[in-house]
Amino acid sequence: MNIFITGGAGFIGSHLAEYHLNRGDNVVIVDDLSTGNEQNVTPFLKDSRYRFEKGDILTWEGMEQEIAVADRIYHMAAVVGMFRVLQQPVEVTRVNVQGTERLLEYIARAKNHPMLVLASSSSVYGHVHTSELREGIELVFPIENNALLGYALSKLTNEIQATAYGQAHGMSIAIPRLFNAVGPRQSGNYGFVLPRFIKQAISGIPLTVFGDGSQTRSFCDVRDTVVALDLLAGNPAGWGQPVNVGNSHEISILDLAKLVIKRAGSSSSIEFVPFEKGYGKHFGQILQRQPVLEKLQHLTSFQHAWTLERTIDDLLKRERSQVDSGASVA
Amino acid sequence: MNIFITGGAGFIGSHLAEYHLNRGDNVVIVDDLSTGNEQNVTPFLKDSRYRFEKGDILTWEGMEQEIAVADRIYHMAAVVGMFRVLQQPVEVTRVNVQGTERLLEYIARAKNHPMLVLASSSSVYGHVHTSELREGIELVFPIENNALLGYALSKLTNEIQATAYGQAHGMSIAIPRLFNAVGPRQSGNYGFVLPRFIKQAISGIPLTVFGDGSQTRSFCDVRDTVVALDLLAGNPAGWGQPVNVGNSHEISILDLAKLVIKRAGSSSSIEFVPFEKGYGKHFGQILQRQPVLEKLQHLTSFQHAWTLERTIDDLLKRERSQVDSGASVA
Repeated sequence: MNIFITGGAGFIGSHLAEYHLNRGDNVVIVDDLSTGNEQNVTPFLKDSRYRFEKGDILTWEGMEQEIAVADRIYHMAAVVGMFRVLQQPVEVTRVNVQGTERLLEYIARAKNHPMLVLASSSSVYGHVHTSELREGIELVFPIENNALLGYALSKLTNEIQATAYGQAHGMSIAIPRLFNAVGPRQSGNYGFVLPRFIKQAISGIPLTVFGDGSQTRSFCDVRDTVVALDLLAGNPAGWGQPVNVGNSHEISILDLAKLVIKRAGSSSSIEFVPFEKGYGKHFGQILQRQPVLEKLQHLTSFQHAWTLERTIDDLLKRERSQVDSGASVA
Repeated sequence: MNIFITGGAGFIGSHLAEYHLNRGDNVVIVDDLSTGNEQNVTPFLKDSRYRFEKGDILTWEGMEQEIAVADRIYHMAAVVGMFRVLQQPVEVTRVNVQGTERLLEYIARAKNHPMLVLASSSSVYGHVHTSELREGIELVFPIENNALLGYALSKLTNEIQATAYGQAHGMSIAIPRLFNAVGPRQSGNYGFVLPRFIKQAISGIPLTVFGDGSQTRSFCDVRDTVVALDLLAGNPAGWGQPVNVGNSHEISILDLAKLVIKRAGSSSSIEFVPFEKGYGKHFGQILQRQPVLEKLQHLTSFQHAWTLERTIDDLLKRERSQVDSGASVA
């Protein structure tokens, strides 16, 4: 297959590239390297079936041509990460909505519409007052923090755009709602918690927990995530509708900090920091985000291969080898 | 003042044009005449302070220049009306989100950012489970009808875009959430109820009520709406945040039908039609949409000049004179 990945130098994008290269597919990625990191994909350059294009999805001129020859497209390019979303609210709508529009237009124009996997996000659930995050439930949005709302809306709008284009042009579109992915190459610079904990534990400095740490999250190893995306792409019954992709195993942020310290054998303490300090005032804290995965399991044979402990051990090992080689500067 | 109105040949847009021409302002409007109607603004052509430009907000080349010389901009251009929204889901996001983006970019580039009045909509409240539609409440969206959700999201995204640009560039933006406006020049072709009832009552044919007619609405005469918009534009304390604009007087659709028949002295009956027939399956009926207007009243001296009865009488009189002159074909 010819695989085209927008945002392919990003965290999940680079794992998709690796996954498909390992399966013998041709992979082209485009990334403007705004959050994506060239180092994420440097190892692939030795593979003749891989090509990297530096470009912005809003303007990159090669986009239409790349789409025309693709068999499958993963659209991962977006302004993501809590910090960047809070700092660049104008860009969130511009890049996430207009970028997707441009992509969908080109797919609609392509003779044989390539199959699209469009990355949506658990953020579309907003502040739903239930722990049962099923795809069909009502979505609830507070309007107190416009930047975070803007991100959630941009992703929900992506789902709407995908459905609208899909119906209008007979396009094949899988719409995974991605819940917190973790794993190698995730940057700690954009507000993602686990890479930060790993670095802090290894450095022996306090692990900073926002709030009281009772907020829970469900982490899915990115190597599981990409398998789920591939399986979802392969089943037409799942196209044209959002499908949760993640791991329903739940852990509080405080317990996550403790677990990282324990697995690392670290002497780090835990430091509690008010939410306001990390995210500014009026930050609407999301207390829980745990996916119900029935739909994914109904549609595919997906099973998780990675436990959180195994992921943490793997991350600790990688971080240590980087620290040892002097390659990592936090 | 130099007033620039996008969607100025539309229902509310044309009343804004009329209002400002009556106050001695210069008025330029742009409209692609997709829902706007050239006849709405033909009478203004005799006024040398008025200019009409046919153009699409996504592509019209005169946009940046017009924005650069404007003192105040009303951004009313959007894919609106239940029928059009259901039929053109791709266009809803494209026109409403990208069109607004383009406008905001040009305002940001203009030396003295002209003041902007950005039309949001009561649709942003979605399916909120309360009759108290205040600006700060949590918004609730079912995802059952993607087209209607797409419209609501496009308007909510407009609010987010406005806030983001306003903060990033120090722009002055009023964000009225418009609740059902009614009055002269509203077309019955896009799913708006009152113009349809008026025509049906005068023709002596049954007034078609969707569902059992118990769903309520709150109608604001458009001549009141434009006064409220002008007042809101005049108070910096109200900028950068959504403000409900409408009329909190509530009436069920069935009572509205009865009222129109009564004021018209019509022999029409009332015919109940299942929602599915008008709007297709899975239509999420909105049972109530009544604005709390405290914020508007706190910010401005706005008072309604038009009762619903007076509006209906005025519409009946106009429709009859059109029928008599042979100008109206329903």
